[in-house]
Amino acid sequence: MTRHFNFCAGPAALPAAVLERARDEMLDYRGHGLSVMEMSHRSAEYVAIAEKAEADLRELLAIPANYRVLFTQGGATQQFAAVPYNLLGAGGTANFVDTGIWSRKAIAEARHLFGDARVAASSEASSNARVPAQEEIELSRDAAYLHYTANETIGGLAFDYIPRGVRPDGVEVPLVCDMSSSILSGPLDVSRFGVIYAGAQKNIGPAGLVVVIVRDDLLDRARADMPSLFGYKALAEGGSMVNTPATYSWYLAGLVFEWLKQDIGGLAAMDAINARKAGKLYAAIDASGLYSNSIAPANRSRMNVPFVLADPRLDKGFLAEAEQAGLLNLKGHRSVGGMRASLYNAVPEAAVDALIDFMADFENRKG
Amino acid sequence: MTRHFNFCAGPAALPAAVLERARDEMLDYRGHGLSVMEMSHRSAEYVAIAEKAEADLRELLAIPANYRVLFTQGGATQQFAAVPYNLLGAGGTANFVDTGIWSRKAIAEARHLFGDARVAASSEASSNARVPAQEEIELSRDAAYLHYTANETIGGLAFDYIPRGVRPDGVEVPLVCDMSSSILSGPLDVSRFGVIYAGAQKNIGPAGLVVVIVRDDLLDRARADMPSLFGYKALAEGGSMVNTPATYSWYLAGLVFEWLKQDIGGLAAMDAINARKAGKLYAAIDASGLYSNSIAPANRSRMNVPFVLADPRLDKGFLAEAEQAGLLNLKGHRSVGGMRASLYNAVPEAAVDALIDFMADFENRKG
Repeated sequence: MTRHFNFCAGPAALPAAVLERARDEMLDYRGHGLSVMEMSHRSAEYVAIAEKAEADLRELLAIPANYRVLFTQGGATQQFAAVPYNLLGAGGTANFVDTGIWSRKAIAEARHLFGDARVAASSEASSNARVPAQEEIELSRDAAYLHYTANETIGGLAFDYIPRGVRPDGVEVPLVCDMSSSILSGPLDVSRFGVIYAGAQKNIGPAGLVVVIVRDDLLDRARADMPSLFGYKALAEGGSMVNTPATYSWYLAGLVFEWLKQDIGGLAAMDAINARKAGKLYAAIDASGLYSNSIAPANRSRMNVPFVLADPRLDKGFLAEAEQAGLLNLKGHRSVGGMRASLYNAVPEAAVDALIDFMADFENRKG
Repeated sequence: MTRHFNFCAGPAALPAAVLERARDEMLDYRGHGLSVMEMSHRSAEYVAIAEKAEADLRELLAIPANYRVLFTQGGATQQFAAVPYNLLGAGGTANFVDTGIWSRKAIAEARHLFGDARVAASSEASSNARVPAQEEIELSRDAAYLHYTANETIGGLAFDYIPRGVRPDGVEVPLVCDMSSSILSGPLDVSRFGVIYAGAQKNIGPAGLVVVIVRDDLLDRARADMPSLFGYKALAEGGSMVNTPATYSWYLAGLVFEWLKQDIGGLAAMDAINARKAGKLYAAIDASGLYSNSIAPANRSRMNVPFVLADPRLDKGFLAEAEQAGLLNLKGHRSVGGMRASLYNAVPEAAVDALIDFMADFENRKG
């Protein structure tokens, strides 16, 4: 068995310790005589697995008691629809900070479903090189909430602050955040948010699962014409078991949460590791004559590090040699080209060191 | 490691051979140096896995070329919404055959979203003991399609024929089938259907995944106000990768399809095994003085065998002793009580034999 270093943007690397445990428990979960995949979601054993996962997530993020945690399906993309369905029941318009491709997908779905969506601020003028400042965010008078994307997985652009959504009349509206590619990368003040959602396939677990954290006073704002499974209130009241949940993915998420607590030592420790990993890769890029990254330093993502080679004719050779060296999935997103190294929680520091060494060697030979 | 016999109605037993393979490939998929869970859904390795799963499913069910196969999320319950969104774009009313709890959930969601749904026939008068005959099915004049539930997982009631949906004007409308708990239990004439959908967690794979088989002339009937991810056309055109699919569940479904082909020998062989398994359990029930099943013999489900004990005070002891004997999850659904033995494809004949022996022994001692 070989394990390579995997810089995939998602579905992304998982901790080897988690995969080993899942492997060992695959046919017989702790003497119960069946796989977690084969358990009724209503069984005592499975409910214990589900509840422990939620408790560990609550502990890691210090989620206040007035927030509900939902484990649902369809990825973050389904939340692009579910959020406006859940929050526009009393009317009003969804407001967005546009920072790149993922923000725009969320905006497009709100427009598709409800005809209107306000772009309250955009990073477009900076070619998505910096996030809008708080004072640049201008909500509509009828703003129902403000949505932003904490970390743009494709652009490698990240917020260095938590914005506030204040209407012209001074009323602060709930803040909604797509945190798919940065959740659990460090501590978070959940109390600042109305809704946080995150597709699992970066820092949580396998693709398909999505975690939603919602403040309980927002559970009664849904539109009546919402597909039932989208409803946060029903999911909250039904313990995310309105229908059969993605049980095995939920279990794996629980193993990841346990790994963060026990093997890593919590989110402050994870934060320090992530700062170190990203810091050394950006330093190597900035010191090089071949590689470059154009994002404003304060808004550089620690999770997704895009970079380009001074001569794009070298791209193909770079990728081929990297793969030969066991450094997988460094190709940038097809919409932007270049390279991208995703450094999620499960990517070990040794992977970053190996990548930096490889990049230096490649530059020496080809740069 | 112990493997018990698991009669769970879903999430249900999976073939041990499939779980063993998933276990062995968990950390390193065939020398690629990463888990399937960690692969980009756009990577060549993953696309090969996804395409092989579809090809094997097409081969097993002999799916005609003018049908598209979609691998999506949210379980069958999400399809209760997705089907009317996809098929009511030109107006008309969804028509349903009501045969029990799952049909009624589909009806309720269509009513919730679109205000109306026609019950074209119902098994209610027979207390869900037999399915309506073809001549009892009366469609509305504006019927857009006819929906039925091939096998009621809770009631244990199954269609012994494929109905036709004919409007009063003689026009035949597309047939839509929730086949969650009977798909792949035997050969099927897919060409009779407009849409077949099935939650994976019975005969396909892990919970969360749902397979949709749709005739391609139905891809242009969608309502404009549909959440984008529900759209069959977009899913078909995007190879079910409109957003990140449930990659690991799709891979496991592929392993199950391969097992059906290679280990079982295809659906005719599976059909014979399933007929034998259900046949001997119903025979044992009918021959007993303690156990009974009230479903009309022609409509008895081969997948879900509900039965009651003549004295319900024995239920608790029956279940406790069964579990002691390694016969898991025999409790009937909370809405109907009694017992239920689910005999999906992955439940081996030895499990049924063990159950019958246990039931006879219990009756001898307590009956």
